[in-house]
Amino acid sequence: MNFFEIIHKDKKTQARTGVIHTDHGDIETPVFMPVGTQATVKTLDKQDLENIDASIILANTYHLHLRPGEDLIDKFGGLHKFMNWDRPILTDSGGFQVFSLGLQKEEKGQGSLTKIDDDGVTFKSHLDGSTHRFTPESAIQIQHKIGADIIMAFDECTPDDADEKYTKKAMARTHNWAQRCITEHKRLNKETKNSELRTKNYLFGIIQGAGHKELRQESAKAISDMDFDGIAIGGESIGYNMKATKKILDWVNPIIPENKPHYTMGVGFSPTDLFDVVECGVDMFDCVAPTRVARNGRLFVHKKVNKKLYINILNAENRENKNPIDPKCTCFTCQNHSRAYIHHLFKAQEMLGYRLATIHNLHFMLNLMKEIRESIKEDRFIELKKEWTK
Amino acid sequence: MNFFEIIHKDKKTQARTGVIHTDHGDIETPVFMPVGTQATVKTLDKQDLENIDASIILANTYHLHLRPGEDLIDKFGGLHKFMNWDRPILTDSGGFQVFSLGLQKEEKGQGSLTKIDDDGVTFKSHLDGSTHRFTPESAIQIQHKIGADIIMAFDECTPDDADEKYTKKAMARTHNWAQRCITEHKRLNKETKNSELRTKNYLFGIIQGAGHKELRQESAKAISDMDFDGIAIGGESIGYNMKATKKILDWVNPIIPENKPHYTMGVGFSPTDLFDVVECGVDMFDCVAPTRVARNGRLFVHKKVNKKLYINILNAENRENKNPIDPKCTCFTCQNHSRAYIHHLFKAQEMLGYRLATIHNLHFMLNLMKEIRESIKEDRFIELKKEWTK
Repeated sequence: MNFFEIIHKDKKTQARTGVIHTDHGDIETPVFMPVGTQATVKTLDKQDLENIDASIILANTYHLHLRPGEDLIDKFGGLHKFMNWDRPILTDSGGFQVFSLGLQKEEKGQGSLTKIDDDGVTFKSHLDGSTHRFTPESAIQIQHKIGADIIMAFDECTPDDADEKYTKKAMARTHNWAQRCITEHKRLNKETKNSELRTKNYLFGIIQGAGHKELRQESAKAISDMDFDGIAIGGESIGYNMKATKKILDWVNPIIPENKPHYTMGVGFSPTDLFDVVECGVDMFDCVAPTRVARNGRLFVHKKVNKKLYINILNAENRENKNPIDPKCTCFTCQNHSRAYIHHLFKAQEMLGYRLATIHNLHFMLNLMKEIRESIKEDRFIELKKEWTK
Repeated sequence: MNFFEIIHKDKKTQARTGVIHTDHGDIETPVFMPVGTQATVKTLDKQDLENIDASIILANTYHLHLRPGEDLIDKFGGLHKFMNWDRPILTDSGGFQVFSLGLQKEEKGQGSLTKIDDDGVTFKSHLDGSTHRFTPESAIQIQHKIGADIIMAFDECTPDDADEKYTKKAMARTHNWAQRCITEHKRLNKETKNSELRTKNYLFGIIQGAGHKELRQESAKAISDMDFDGIAIGGESIGYNMKATKKILDWVNPIIPENKPHYTMGVGFSPTDLFDVVECGVDMFDCVAPTRVARNGRLFVHKKVNKKLYINILNAENRENKNPIDPKCTCFTCQNHSRAYIHHLFKAQEMLGYRLATIHNLHFMLNLMKEIRESIKEDRFIELKKEWTK
């Protein structure tokens, strides 16, 4: 069985549905992956995640390396067992976090927590200031110990405003690291090939190149030519600047092989962002926003409820509101509680409020994903997109 | 049907099992009531409470009056509907909180947030410093609006070290207020007797008298002689000083009518405290400790796991511990997660940790209550007590 199967292609756009097969079950694509940074999707338990039908979650290598450490997770037989989650997991490589921690002052490091050289990156823990080092090899070793179903190559995430010269240099380094990741991944797989207990990890490469068209296309070609199971598009702006994201996708799409999953890292800030990337043929995406904004009281709703597609539960108008967050929503929160009650929990800073809000936002996103997959299968993706975005 | 039925009396002690009947269902006694101060048992949802089989929860009149206010709750048809909890609720009268907020400087008030006079108490909100006033009448009115199944008379909670003169004066005031509460309760019931929608509230009186034997006995007689549905024993030391609690119970027990529920307010700091009050014939008790200490990492275990009857999940020895908190425990937490995972969640200050800990501690308490009820029915309460406390 192939790792990735395309089920149906939309006739009018590049949108497609598919299935990713893993040891921990199938993932229908396109898929939004909730973020569980520290081995927990903040506030939720495994039952909550099953109830909202999360088919895969993401965890962060950087955070898990620092706490509790990959060796501890390895002793438990991997992250699935450590956190008792038996559906698929994806780990990022730590690249993004390492760079988002400090200024990218190459080989200087003054005032920076992060020092980068051609061999790897030295950085300081945001927890206790201790010094750590990631290389392509160690990032893969750590991820093998964590044991996610999908793991990511270690890359240098260049900032949007990086000039062409620097971007080119960083990109070359990322490509070199990508090949080193593949080599280490294969070496580790060979070493443990007889272990039936081990989760099979699929390795994805990451396209960089900041905002430079030629470099993005060069990177797309280089990463596509390597032996990766899936192709990710990385970079500071991906997801946070949807106009730039779409432009970059247009540049690289003709180059990326169709038969591998396409993954935009950081997309899903708002529900409608999903349409933009799905339209460009993207199969996977993740974003902390739906859970983070939930804990700040921003809750997703359908357009008929509020044109903005969200409400702020802390607003005074919700104080006496007997309706659920969204009357169309079938999540636990909307089936059981009024806006007034959730408003009260937020005002009183009660943890239950944050969890109810998180359940709602993630259910909303995953339910929309389901609708999007249905619409693609029925060749009415563009119509659904118009309904949501016009 | 009587409000309270005694099912079985232990042959060797005053322990008894019974059933309290309410509009929202039956409560098997003796019962431990989890505390849901602000219309939520901290971190838990209604399903969690049903899963641990909580048959009644407590809410705080003082807190709900300040936020969201009883008028808002009334607009929702009462607290059951506001928080969507359809099992019984008990509200305290606000007396304890009003007094624990400020020094009891009678009619002086300098440096105090609380001013007490014979008609009622003026106090300042801990939220915003605004001035509020509770009288026996208003405390009952507020509780009728909140609409709990069991409500409490407004009392003056005298400190342990109050001298006999002051205690006597405060006690007389409490008795006067108790009668005023009954009068107001009856007036409100008459006013709304035709409303079928309204929850029937049962009113409990509270015995005070601090540490003075004669006053405690006088108070027990006065409160017992009034038309209350249940009798509570209040005071600063109840629950927090079990030696004093037992002494006071011994003084008042012969006086309190057997056929009304007996309620010690604030008992349940540790699992074994339950045995002490059940042995004295107490049917109901509540305490914030099991949920509060859970959020600090103190988790209850059976004696064979740790002689102290608790572990501190933050201790380094739990870092790599693959066992559940307590191997005998059947709660969601122990069925699904290792100590190491919960230790990690606490270290990372993840909210899921606090919820998993709360589920465990409350399940532990309520499960022990079940065992205690069984032991009484089978006339082996003393044997069970010995097993737990020897």
